[in-house]
Amino acid sequence: MTFEDRTSELAGEIEPSDASAVEAARDRHRRLLKPPGSLGRLEDFGARLAGMVGFSPPPVPESPAVVVCVGDHGVLAQRVSPWPREVTAAMVENFCAGSAAVNALAQTVGARVSVLDVGVASELVQHPLVREAKVRRGTDDLSEGPAMSREEAAQAVMAGAGIVEELVESGGVDLLVTGDMGIGNTTPAACLIAAFTGRPAEEVTGRGTGIDDATLGLKIEVVERALELHRPDPGDPIGTLAALGGLEHAALVGLILMGAVYRIPVLLDGVVSNSAALVARALAPDSIGYTIAGHLSPEPGAGISLQKLGLEPLLDLDMRLGEGTGGLLAVPLVQSAARVLDEMATLDEAGIA
Amino acid sequence: MTFEDRTSELAGEIEPSDASAVEAARDRHRRLLKPPGSLGRLEDFGARLAGMVGFSPPPVPESPAVVVCVGDHGVLAQRVSPWPREVTAAMVENFCAGSAAVNALAQTVGARVSVLDVGVASELVQHPLVREAKVRRGTDDLSEGPAMSREEAAQAVMAGAGIVEELVESGGVDLLVTGDMGIGNTTPAACLIAAFTGRPAEEVTGRGTGIDDATLGLKIEVVERALELHRPDPGDPIGTLAALGGLEHAALVGLILMGAVYRIPVLLDGVVSNSAALVARALAPDSIGYTIAGHLSPEPGAGISLQKLGLEPLLDLDMRLGEGTGGLLAVPLVQSAARVLDEMATLDEAGIA
Repeated sequence: MTFEDRTSELAGEIEPSDASAVEAARDRHRRLLKPPGSLGRLEDFGARLAGMVGFSPPPVPESPAVVVCVGDHGVLAQRVSPWPREVTAAMVENFCAGSAAVNALAQTVGARVSVLDVGVASELVQHPLVREAKVRRGTDDLSEGPAMSREEAAQAVMAGAGIVEELVESGGVDLLVTGDMGIGNTTPAACLIAAFTGRPAEEVTGRGTGIDDATLGLKIEVVERALELHRPDPGDPIGTLAALGGLEHAALVGLILMGAVYRIPVLLDGVVSNSAALVARALAPDSIGYTIAGHLSPEPGAGISLQKLGLEPLLDLDMRLGEGTGGLLAVPLVQSAARVLDEMATLDEAGIA
Repeated sequence: MTFEDRTSELAGEIEPSDASAVEAARDRHRRLLKPPGSLGRLEDFGARLAGMVGFSPPPVPESPAVVVCVGDHGVLAQRVSPWPREVTAAMVENFCAGSAAVNALAQTVGARVSVLDVGVASELVQHPLVREAKVRRGTDDLSEGPAMSREEAAQAVMAGAGIVEELVESGGVDLLVTGDMGIGNTTPAACLIAAFTGRPAEEVTGRGTGIDDATLGLKIEVVERALELHRPDPGDPIGTLAALGGLEHAALVGLILMGAVYRIPVLLDGVVSNSAALVARALAPDSIGYTIAGHLSPEPGAGISLQKLGLEPLLDLDMRLGEGTGGLLAVPLVQSAARVLDEMATLDEAGIA
């Protein structure tokens, strides 16, 4: 069985989130000890959570885990980022040392950190945090040919799915946070977003972690050229992912799909995760019912993706680091959305008419 | 010594937040293991925190406490709310029973809950969570005369200041969250906001926890009439607070002032807290340097107040419940802002040029 067949099979296992549990949560919110609607969007997120797990009130997620999917990018040859490729591997070392932003934020919210190597260009040192599932040593330059083969893309998808199974089996996880690291990876993200939303390169391409005007102009041209070269068909998600994506983008697709299979809520980080969610949606539209947008990245493709996905972000703090940082910050908000449904009394119980 | 003199003395003790600590934190953020600025507004909040405590990196706040200040309102006679006055006391019982929204959210973020009774109309049962500091049994109708006397307003301010001292002495607190409960209390909030920003009643008056169009029209008229009657002088904050405020609003003023004296960051909840911050600002402009806007309430006076205060809210989730709920939700964000400064390596330490 090919990886592509396995990906199709995985996508086929996903069921819609439970509309009756959503309605039960909404009804409970109307009866809770507060004016109806006064908890605003926290009520909406609570109801969506109920739909994901399939009952109301949903349990409070107590075992969050962030998975940082990591890969390198051939398109870096086009000078779309000022950072050298070696920084990807160096950052993995820092994740392992506990000294990066993802570690500090995971610590604050009590999340486990895992690093999934699906495509770092160099050999990484072994470390308990790192799951080695390298598909290849970085992608090819997507502006000159396909970034990878269809089978490689699907293999990376299945690696992302596999780490969800491992987390479930090793101690459990009830809230997944998507993370990414890969120097140059907002260029494939922009390509995927253009492919799945039909928007032009200049509308979906941004400054990533912070490039100057000249580099941005070049980056837009690279995205345009890649779209011109591959003429992606959004009806062929694996083909589009192989032509224009990255290995960590593909792994995130698998993480989202497997989260939906297990009915575990998936908190999306920024633009790379958003682009992966568009691929997941194309493979299995119902998978998006299990995702929550942790934050809105200032990268222009992020808002365009979330609109297409029908997701409202919880946070908008102008964060553009990746690593899962924006998703992690939203963990306590998700826990709170569940906890008010679970722990508040109803007006009746409180004796207030 | 009168309560008004004591309030002036308290306001006089407040020193500006530490600009050199802010600069040290900003400088550290430029050197941390990430592209400069990529943590967005989390970097700004971290720098402000450093200024509050007076050094960089600031310690991670580990002992947050929410103080729900409670009072009743004579203006309820004007039918500005559909809820009866008795709900204020009933909600205090629910806070004590642990069954309200504030309890669920405090539990999520690990915050202590205190309830400060400065003006509930009825006698409350004794409970370890409740600090009894009743100044009077609710205010008078501010649309027909002063809500209270100057001394009563100042006494409530000092009660709010007093609970900060108690919290510091009994186990410590390193992050204060403002909370409020009082049926009808968005009407005095709107009056205070109009008085201190010069904006007309119809721009600052909103639906509170959710009133219909007819009640909103009536509420705007009541605010207009009160402003007409008292012609408040924003240069006389205690006079304005006495004429147009509420006892819990006054207590929140004291909480903000005493937080600034102790250099403890104060996370503001919604519109009632915002209106109290305007009074605190008029008494001691530097006190606002120790406040953080936890969220933006949809009440129109909230955004107008925050603009006047120069504060950017952390969250915008359409929450309008009060009780401190919007402030509590922001606690992990404040902790995260401190933690990245404290725990991340620098680029140099990580060996990345």
